[in-house]
Amino acid sequence: MIKLKPSVERLQAYFVNDIPYRVKLDANEGSNYLLTEGFKMESFSPNLYPDSDSVVLRKKMAAYYGCSPDNIMVGNGSSEMINMVINAYCEKDDRVMSFVPSFSMYQTYCDLCGAEYVGIETENDFSQNMDKLIKAVKEQKPKVVIVCTPNNPTGFVTPREDIIGLLESTEDSLVILDEAYIDFSEGSTIELINTYENLVVMRTLSKAFGLAGLRVGALIAKEETVRYIWKVKVPYNINVLSQYAAEQALENKDRVNAYISSVKSLRSELAENLEILGFKIYPSGANFLFVQSPVDNLYEKLMEKGVLIRKISYKGVAYNRITVGTKEENEILINEIKKINGEDI
Amino acid sequence: MIKLKPSVERLQAYFVNDIPYRVKLDANEGSNYLLTEGFKMESFSPNLYPDSDSVVLRKKMAAYYGCSPDNIMVGNGSSEMINMVINAYCEKDDRVMSFVPSFSMYQTYCDLCGAEYVGIETENDFSQNMDKLIKAVKEQKPKVVIVCTPNNPTGFVTPREDIIGLLESTEDSLVILDEAYIDFSEGSTIELINTYENLVVMRTLSKAFGLAGLRVGALIAKEETVRYIWKVKVPYNINVLSQYAAEQALENKDRVNAYISSVKSLRSELAENLEILGFKIYPSGANFLFVQSPVDNLYEKLMEKGVLIRKISYKGVAYNRITVGTKEENEILINEIKKINGEDI
Repeated sequence: MIKLKPSVERLQAYFVNDIPYRVKLDANEGSNYLLTEGFKMESFSPNLYPDSDSVVLRKKMAAYYGCSPDNIMVGNGSSEMINMVINAYCEKDDRVMSFVPSFSMYQTYCDLCGAEYVGIETENDFSQNMDKLIKAVKEQKPKVVIVCTPNNPTGFVTPREDIIGLLESTEDSLVILDEAYIDFSEGSTIELINTYENLVVMRTLSKAFGLAGLRVGALIAKEETVRYIWKVKVPYNINVLSQYAAEQALENKDRVNAYISSVKSLRSELAENLEILGFKIYPSGANFLFVQSPVDNLYEKLMEKGVLIRKISYKGVAYNRITVGTKEENEILINEIKKINGEDI
Repeated sequence: MIKLKPSVERLQAYFVNDIPYRVKLDANEGSNYLLTEGFKMESFSPNLYPDSDSVVLRKKMAAYYGCSPDNIMVGNGSSEMINMVINAYCEKDDRVMSFVPSFSMYQTYCDLCGAEYVGIETENDFSQNMDKLIKAVKEQKPKVVIVCTPNNPTGFVTPREDIIGLLESTEDSLVILDEAYIDFSEGSTIELINTYENLVVMRTLSKAFGLAGLRVGALIAKEETVRYIWKVKVPYNINVLSQYAAEQALENKDRVNAYISSVKSLRSELAENLEILGFKIYPSGANFLFVQSPVDNLYEKLMEKGVLIRKISYKGVAYNRITVGTKEENEILINEIKKINGEDI
């Protein structure tokens, strides 16, 4: 067998293990509330290549995100674009830096292009010491710095002044703000793109819009930066159906805002109920909670009951990441935990 | 501005220049004949991530292509997978080799990962001297060799014995057979995948299925090779809508075969009519013709009439690539050329 290049040879092939479930709280997916009527396209030319520049979609995104279409590039999920940007800037052994723990694909994207991923450890409570990151950036000169806020999987929201502090002190690194979950928090950095040409903000329709199945994400940056990065955009990366569905969905700002409010309120309620059951809850600005469970092997025990959550091990300690579900889903979760505890419900 | 890595810095950002048209014969798209009723999805969960392994789609493809689902990986167009495979095998300055002229994106994918693209010139009639390629492979030891057959843009079909000759003599290179247009010709190499573990065949639904808008392609290889390359597959690369539409389309083998027959017969007819008008026609196994026009600036003159074809310059000589259209589209093309020639029609 011809060998893959060394940086990818060590990767594990990722096959999804389909587990039957009643309640799925493992992947931070939203509810289907924008395309509830199913999906219809009457006049439709599947035989023609899609609009490679996604002109209509970028226009509708611009209206939603409060910027110009020229500030936007769209991709097959924001993950395609994080991969693309890392590859565009990094040759073999160039560094990419972020706090850890964070989104596990950053490491994979580095391996795919041979870059070195440098993780800067967060504090014991998973808060981020930005001075530590800035110091490491100055010393190790990464080509790309990624800040995921709210952070996946911890939910930690990076304070605005810390982001500005980082942008002010990193002239030689591209800074990616991965804002996949920012809709459930406050203060996107999109308004900073014209001040910092090295800032690239990533957004997605997979979370707050409840459209993970469509694979649509946005890269948002200063116009000159977008045009520059466009060199590495592959043509026709978003199919015609996803473009159309996303365009329709983006016309529902009020419903999106209402959905976000409801998730925030369900998040507080879920956190309170889990706290009563003895869970340690880390503050979260996302549509999930990062928790430490008083019950051993919670993931396995809930899976037996058809309730899927995520288990995460960090420095030998077990944590769980639980998506905030609907009221009913959260109730099933809480009741199943009570049953595991032997409580009457 | 932070600089992109050197191999991509020289790339040009590709923005599509939308030209209004009556007849579009520039991108080798097929007709919409499989999803003519529009597109409907009634029970549909856009909020959940798509099946990352595309289990149902791969099963239906396997039935169509005459192999096992384990021989198949699917991607966001076959182009995503050509890019992915080149990147997976090549570090900076590793070589990728193919005959030239060929699909222009091979060079771009090399630039994206820093590989060196080595083009082996075809003969004066654009036929391929396989001994010359094999000799170059032995001397220059490319990590990846790509054979596009039928070749885009020339239409040349690589003889089966030449492909076997290449596979027999290249133990150290992965061989990609880009068969995007093979449906319009004879003899896919899929039946060779179990004999040659270094053979990777690329197929697409963009041409013979008339589904370029969906962005669905297949990588077909020996099971062990597929599992090995799966290391570099990014999760969730095909959205839920395209998977569903492609699954439906693949159940129409008879209609696909009928469509292919009609394209072949329209191709002969178009070639004859262009020959009468003084065109030099190169033999084509694809859904397009590669031609030399007796009329100067044919591309520009036809564009003014709303007929889009492709112009290709190679070694300072002007050629055109013309998609075989429907009977009506081909008639409009021929009539417009006659009008340009000043003939009465």
